[in-house]
Formats: sequence, structure tokens, C-alpha cells
Amino acid sequence: MSNPQADLIIKMYFSAWEAQNKQFADLLDKLPEEALMLETAPGRNTGIYLLGHIVAVTDNMLKLMGFRDKMYPELFELFIKTPDKSGKEFPSAADLKARYHKVTNEVNNHCKTLSTEDWLSRHTAVSEEDFAKEPHRNKLNILVSRTTHLASHTGQMIYLFK
Amino acid sequence: MSNPQADLIIKMYFSAWEAQNKQFADLLDKLPEEALMLETAPGRNTGIYLLGHIVAVTDNMLKLMGFRDKMYPELFELFIKTPDKSGKEFPSAADLKARYHKVTNEVNNHCKTLSTEDWLSRHTAVSEEDFAKEPHRNKLNILVSRTTHLASHTGQMIYLFK
Repeated sequence: MSNPQADLIIKMYFSAWEAQNKQFADLLDKLPEEALMLETAPGRNTGIYLLGHIVAVTDNMLKLMGFRDKMYPELFELFIKTPDKSGKEFPSAADLKARYHKVTNEVNNHCKTLSTEDWLSRHTAVSEEDFAKEPHRNKLNILVSRTTHLASHTGQMIYLFK
Repeated sequence: MSNPQADLIIKMYFSAWEAQNKQFADLLDKLPEEALMLETAPGRNTGIYLLGHIVAVTDNMLKLMGFRDKMYPELFELFIKTPDKSGKEFPSAADLKARYHKVTNEVNNHCKTLSTEDWLSRHTAVSEEDFAKEPHRNKLNILVSRTTHLASHTGQMIYLFK
């Protein structure tokens, strides 16, 4: 069931996801690690919390998209369930940066194996019954929503540059 | 040339654009106008500059997507070509908010008339020759890139809330 139009559009979205991740990775490359320890604005989330949050949200995509179990399940509690400045200890910035690259590569490698039918199949947080009524709740939609989520936090982390 | 898969994916993406705009419009509704006059973080863009910037970028979509001429061409110079704090006078926050709603409605009304073929046709900043080689440079891609752009600045404007 070849569908060149759908294939093109999915490729466009995947490119948008990759471009947003490239911007985030460039930011991590250029930002001194001590800057990551600061608040992005007075009283707001720190850079390292947002980095950990992005790692945890990306990791959760592996499960939502049905690829595999989370690579770093302990980060879900620390960076999604728990707000910043709770007093809990974070992994180091170097460690979280390495995990960001590993988990993003893992998501991307799985994504590259998907056919158009796979992309449009349900994600794991929706039941078969609901999916029959709401076919937009598919794997591609996870990628779409996580791209804008990443863009939003990248916009905030840019403020860490002097 | 019916293509239910492509139609579904385009609908998903248009919904992501609408959801991002709803978040931005809610922020404008809830934020006191005096808060818009402040910097989003120390030394960074003010809320009113970012609001004007979003209006100008959305207005420019009308032209890039081949719908019509810009509604507010003077804002392109003021909020895209010129950085914040240049000393130039801005329209009032109330005026820019009204223009944001008008220009977004105009974009959306035109978008709703597009067929899948229309979405995948070239945008006006790419030549026919280049488009033949790079078919992703289409109208849908304008919507995709403007959605992440809006998400990034919305993430910054959230910092205006006390």
C-alpha cells in the first residue's frame, strides 16, 4: 500500500523533530556546564532540571510508541512527577547529557523502522476501543506533541546563555 | 484523488497548530496587560515585543502560503527586522492582541480551504525549480515550522506570570 503523499508528510514531521533535537543538542554543546546549574529565569526551573525533564519525556516515548521499556525509569519520578528544587539529588550534567544523546538515538533508530501504517497505529496509552473512534491518537501524534514540548523548553533554556 | 492517510496526518498537524495557538491565546487572556510590558527574563525580550513578533510572523504566513498580502506589513519591520528595545514605539498591547486574533483567524480560515494537494504545493519563498528537487518545501512545512516557533516563544512568555 504505497502512499507517497503520506510518506512525504511523515518524513517532514520526523525532520522537524530531528531539527528541534539538533537545536537542543547544539545548546547543550555550547552551554558551559555551570550555566546549566542556574535558573533559566528568577524563580523558574534550572537548566539541569529541564535537561533531566527532556531526557525523561523522551525516554517515555519509547514506551508510549511501543518500542521497548524505558532506559532510565528512575528519571520519570525525578523529572516528571517531582518539581524542581524538591531537595532530591540529580545526576550530574555530564551524565544527563550522555543519557539525552543515548535515549534520543534510541527513539530515532526505532522511528526509522516504522512504515506509514506503523506511524498511524495506536500508541500504548490509548485503548483499541478509543482508538477506533479517535484515529489521531497514533504514534505520529506522540512525535508531534513531543516536538512542540521540546521547542517550548528549548526557548526557556536559551536564557541560560550570558 | 482521495487519500485518507494523508488527510488524517494533515488534520493532526493542523490540530497541533490550533492547540499551540489556543495556549498562546489563553496566556494573553490571563496575563495582565502591565505584565506584557516586562522582560520575560532579565535582559531578554519583553512580552509585548514577543507578542508583536508572533503577530508579524503569523501575518507573513499569509504571504508565504500564497493566501493574500500581509494585513499589517508595518509590523514586519518593527518586530522581525528590528530587535526589542530599539527605541521605536510599539502599538498598544490591546491593539496587538486584537491583531493577533484577526491574523490567526485569517490564516486558519484560508488553511481550512486547502486540499491535501494544496497543502503539499510549494510555498512562495521557493522557486518551481528548487521545489521539484525539494518537495518538502511546501505550505504544510510553513505551518510545521511556525508551530515550533510559537511553542518556543510561548515557553518564554509563560515566565511573565508572577
